[in-house]
Amino acid sequence: MSFAEPLHDIAHLGGIELFTPRFERSLWYFHDLLGMEVVHRNGSSAYLRGWGDHSVSTLKLTSADRPGVGCIAWRTVSPQALERRAEAITADGLAIGWTNGDFGRGRSFRFCDPDGHLMELYFEEQKYDPPARLRSALKNQPQKYTGRGVGVRRTDHLALLAADVGRNRRFAESTLGFQLREQVLFEQGKREIGSWMSPNAIHHQLAYVADVKGGHGRLHHISMWVDNREDVLRAADILVENAIFVEAGPSKHNNSQGFYLYSYEPGGNRVEIYSGSYLVLAPDWRPVTWNEEERGSGTYWGAPLPESFIQYATPDIEPPGRKSDSLDLPVFF
Amino acid sequence: MSFAEPLHDIAHLGGIELFTPRFERSLWYFHDLLGMEVVHRNGSSAYLRGWGDHSVSTLKLTSADRPGVGCIAWRTVSPQALERRAEAITADGLAIGWTNGDFGRGRSFRFCDPDGHLMELYFEEQKYDPPARLRSALKNQPQKYTGRGVGVRRTDHLALLAADVGRNRRFAESTLGFQLREQVLFEQGKREIGSWMSPNAIHHQLAYVADVKGGHGRLHHISMWVDNREDVLRAADILVENAIFVEAGPSKHNNSQGFYLYSYEPGGNRVEIYSGSYLVLAPDWRPVTWNEEERGSGTYWGAPLPESFIQYATPDIEPPGRKSDSLDLPVFF
Amino acid sequence: MSFAEPLHDIAHLGGIELFTPRFERSLWYFHDLLGMEVVHRNGSSAYLRGWGDHSVSTLKLTSADRPGVGCIAWRTVSPQALERRAEAITADGLAIGWTNGDFGRGRSFRFCDPDGHLMELYFEEQKYDPPARLRSALKNQPQKYTGRGVGVRRTDHLALLAADVGRNRRFAESTLGFQLREQVLFEQGKREIGSWMSPNAIHHQLAYVADVKGGHGRLHHISMWVDNREDVLRAADILVENAIFVEAGPSKHNNSQGFYLYSYEPGGNRVEIYSGSYLVLAPDWRPVTWNEEERGSGTYWGAPLPESFIQYATPDIEPPGRKSDSLDLPVFF
Amino acid sequence: MSFAEPLHDIAHLGGIELFTPRFERSLWYFHDLLGMEVVHRNGSSAYLRGWGDHSVSTLKLTSADRPGVGCIAWRTVSPQALERRAEAITADGLAIGWTNGDFGRGRSFRFCDPDGHLMELYFEEQKYDPPARLRSALKNQPQKYTGRGVGVRRTDHLALLAADVGRNRRFAESTLGFQLREQVLFEQGKREIGSWMSPNAIHHQLAYVADVKGGHGRLHHISMWVDNREDVLRAADILVENAIFVEAGPSKHNNSQGFYLYSYEPGGNRVEIYSGSYLVLAPDWRPVTWNEEERGSGTYWGAPLPESFIQYATPDIEPPGRKSDSLDLPVFF
Repeated sequence: MSFAEPLHDIAHLGGIELFTPRFERSLWYFHDLLGMEVVHRNGSSAYLRGWGDHSVSTLKLTSADRPGVGCIAWRTVSPQALERRAEAITADGLAIGWTNGDFGRGRSFRFCDPDGHLMELYFEEQKYDPPARLRSALKNQPQKYTGRGVGVRRTDHLALLAADVGRNRRFAESTLGFQLREQVLFEQGKREIGSWMSPNAIHHQLAYVADVKGGHGRLHHISMWVDNREDVLRAADILVENAIFVEAGPSKHNNSQGFYLYSYEPGGNRVEIYSGSYLVLAPDWRPVTWNEEERGSGTYWGAPLPESFIQYATPDIEPPGRKSDSLDLPVFF
Repeated sequence: MSFAEPLHDIAHLGGIELFTPRFERSLWYFHDLLGMEVVHRNGSSAYLRGWGDHSVSTLKLTSADRPGVGCIAWRTVSPQALERRAEAITADGLAIGWTNGDFGRGRSFRFCDPDGHLMELYFEEQKYDPPARLRSALKNQPQKYTGRGVGVRRTDHLALLAADVGRNRRFAESTLGFQLREQVLFEQGKREIGSWMSPNAIHHQLAYVADVKGGHGRLHHISMWVDNREDVLRAADILVENAIFVEAGPSKHNNSQGFYLYSYEPGGNRVEIYSGSYLVLAPDWRPVTWNEEERGSGTYWGAPLPESFIQYATPDIEPPGRKSDSLDLPVFF
Repeated sequence: MSFAEPLHDIAHLGGIELFTPRFERSLWYFHDLLGMEVVHRNGSSAYLRGWGDHSVSTLKLTSADRPGVGCIAWRTVSPQALERRAEAITADGLAIGWTNGDFGRGRSFRFCDPDGHLMELYFEEQKYDPPARLRSALKNQPQKYTGRGVGVRRTDHLALLAADVGRNRRFAESTLGFQLREQVLFEQGKREIGSWMSPNAIHHQLAYVADVKGGHGRLHHISMWVDNREDVLRAADILVENAIFVEAGPSKHNNSQGFYLYSYEPGGNRVEIYSGSYLVLAPDWRPVTWNEEERGSGTYWGAPLPESFIQYATPDIEPPGRKSDSLDLPVFF
Repeated sequence: MSFAEPLHDIAHLGGIELFTPRFERSLWYFHDLLGMEVVHRNGSSAYLRGWGDHSVSTLKLTSADRPGVGCIAWRTVSPQALERRAEAITADGLAIGWTNGDFGRGRSFRFCDPDGHLMELYFEEQKYDPPARLRSALKNQPQKYTGRGVGVRRTDHLALLAADVGRNRRFAESTLGFQLREQVLFEQGKREIGSWMSPNAIHHQLAYVADVKGGHGRLHHISMWVDNREDVLRAADILVENAIFVEAGPSKHNNSQGFYLYSYEPGGNRVEIYSGSYLVLAPDWRPVTWNEEERGSGTYWGAPLPESFIQYATPDIEPPGRKSDSLDLPVFF
């Protein structure tokens, strides 16, 4: 009877802002190749959506000098939950403050995670109301499946680099109420290489992984969902035919069981096309941990992930100290 | 700010008991054809699991005179939630009382839904600890994928018939805290034909559909999950090669967007092999409703569902009154 | 040692001309929805190709008063084979004569099959040389896979109606050298309902099926190939989202084992999206025959084909005589 | 009119004999994991088949000291073609002579290719007549799809190493009548690294690749067909769950466009699970050639093939001379 009641204040990842130094080419990548729709533009930003996203937009593309991640938005389960989490974050000393909300959202509470990634919480959101040309024949589908390009269904998750994985993981667990799903722990558990977490049944919507270059606030990848493994294979063809670099995959991770493909969008950010994985419904989920040997190559069938998968993130930086220390890390996503 | 905080006391469907008058043949169906494992047997029951089920068993097969559904088990998110729901059910006058729990579960609270289906709530459960021959090469996979037959991953949901859909739907919403996802409403919304609900992100784990023969406590189908649509197609080949009746599909529903195949297991119960559909993460989900015209054939691509899909359920009964009234119902799952 | 040497003069189906009374809408269907490219236009015709077609064009769309099939072109294995077949056809009394060849082809020999469908043989053809925007990253792929719509790979086969199936089948076997693959034979083999044939390893590139309305020269369907069953499922979504009528499928035939979807293009012609089936490499292939009972619904998993599948063909006509005779035919494709 | 008539005397690959030093474990691999059936056993050999093979057996497993390939059988299109090819081979000085035929085959003509691989030609064959338990519900399917393991449909092709690729390729073209489909040519076309050929519409049924260790008569891999890419992915799960080494894939080749997975069966031979690729129907097919740069990694999406893919073949040998010469070869299958 000593089981603590799980916190359930955050509902899901609401949206990701991505910085790109090649705005029009990035837009072409997400619109023409991935098949997303642009629902709004203002100043230097465009707001996009997958055909299965219920809210009006889940991806914001913003012109910037360097690639990387902007504001990461999480939706709470209620206005009350929004207040509760704002208080908890403030108590942690990580608060930035309230805003009137970005496009499609009500007021939001902004903060930074311990590593410095900008985040916000909000509850009110605008549901998508498609124009006639994008109305689906399915009443329960928020938008027509257009058949253009990859046809990603929705924004699924993101992976952030952090100088101190453990500190950020604990923040996400304790203050945001995320459930820890899997971990890579080296040196008999003393070195936390990566942690995968979620506020809902999706295996992970947020991952923190060690920044081997010692940076802060950097992005490893964002991930777009497709329903079948076959869609990921088809995506590979489409991306390669359009001279997009496919860094790894299609293949299957051991961690998360995800079926993945990693590409670099023209702005330089790593974008995953993703399917498979598994749902977690257990309130008492016991995190799965992987040590050096178990982790192996980070893939299930044996294909190694390339060195760039550890070394490259956005924005790209030079390693501050001795690189030899970084290089002894096996691949860990 | 008037948005009510969602109740989140029930975590997921824990297991289904299925009655079969042809026990050994039903076991052959679930073990040899669907590829499930038998983890335990006692008296007239066998306990089975899919390779992706985290708890020890999610399907209990029990020898009986007639097919149909036995006890339907739901897991709560905590011991406290178990107590809270037991109190609420008792207040509704639907309580049966506490048991010491079935195989693999701690104490459970038994009750009937308004239509008379036997259900229970529990929190404590035994996680699956596979024998060596069933240990997976994946540390996060509870069991080896054996490659035998269809290879269903887990028990996904079930659909029950009810004389009064609305009454049962309201019970599931108010007392159990399920979220209503979709509804079929005829006669300008006055006749509730079917309602699909869930306690978690899975589109539906419980559906109530009108019993056109006026019975009580009957089962329309149970549903087993596979990860890809291709697995459903492959299942069709396997079932037909083994002389199992495929009543409908593989095809795609409009409601739920589920990719389905309906078969009759040898005991007579309808079993669905299922993939696709969509997750619901929104705390303020607005139920999708379908009227007579929108509902159409109940399928997305146009293939009609057979008349048996309305008329047949387990246990099978003769309609009590005038059959003409029943027959004017279009297909509605 | 008495085995006759197989004739091997015809290499493959070279192209199909389709008549449409709604030219621009038909073009939209093939270009925007199926993802074919237009390589040439002249007068009232457009020439299209799938991304995997090696010759410049395999589908000619021609504006006409009524839908139906125009000229059906077969490529021979050599100039000598072209001469040999022209002589044999002439001997059969079915010759029309030589032409200078349609777009992308050398001189052709035109003739009618016994039922009156216009056909031609040719050897010389223009290989496809893509413009830069359609050049594939794969050197062995004649054209970029654009990711637009269904993305059909190539024109696969066609099915023609005939008043006398046997007579046309014997012509295709004896004079053209096609191998008979499967047959539907009713009334103890006395009534030939349908015959499936091919000049190469593809299961069938030409089928003749009884015209239940007693017409001549009519088309049942043309068929476009995709590589995986999943592509056919995806095609169903795309077509339904664009208000294209899906008459049947996606499902699996018993005959040919083909995984099919039948749609009506805007001009009224039935177009199949097709995958699966099986290759035939045996020189002594024994045709598979199906009687009334074996034929059943014409599908493998049990889904019935609709009545329109027998009754409708292009151009559509009124049945000349007593319809009751037609209606006793089960579905037979 | 100067186009030479194509020779069409060989119909298809009839069967492959595989040597294994771990007979029972190899049998477990092909029967339990790949899902093949054993149709006959004698002495130290077992005869197997895929569910879609029309002849009684296409794979012969023979106990031996070392792994490698035994006799490779090709079926002719007629008894006359068998005589013609026997004469041509004899004229080439490569004849061994006539045998009464192996299990399931009539008399055969044995010979060696220039590199020393044992081959035979035959025409008469025994079609598969399944026992009741293996009878398919599909009349045109030679055997039930059992749903056991990978479920390979048929034996598709094989790749042989040769000291002199060009000499063997010319023999296959001129004497056997195979059509050259693709080639890897280095050093401005002067060094023939690999050649892919076929006697029918299948992209390649025989490949010769340079033996970097200077051996003779060695095997690179045999290849088993499955119908969909999804089947290859599923195969990867099954193989890894059973501790079978997956050397590369699932992924997609640039050459042949084949979707591949390479494993080592317990006897040490490399076995590919294969789908995709493309058919070649053109009598005047122009071979696709790849130089060093175009060839790249040998894969389409960028995943490198491991060094073992060049270095390892069966039987395994020590390189005779200077290894440095071998090692400068990029991957080339």
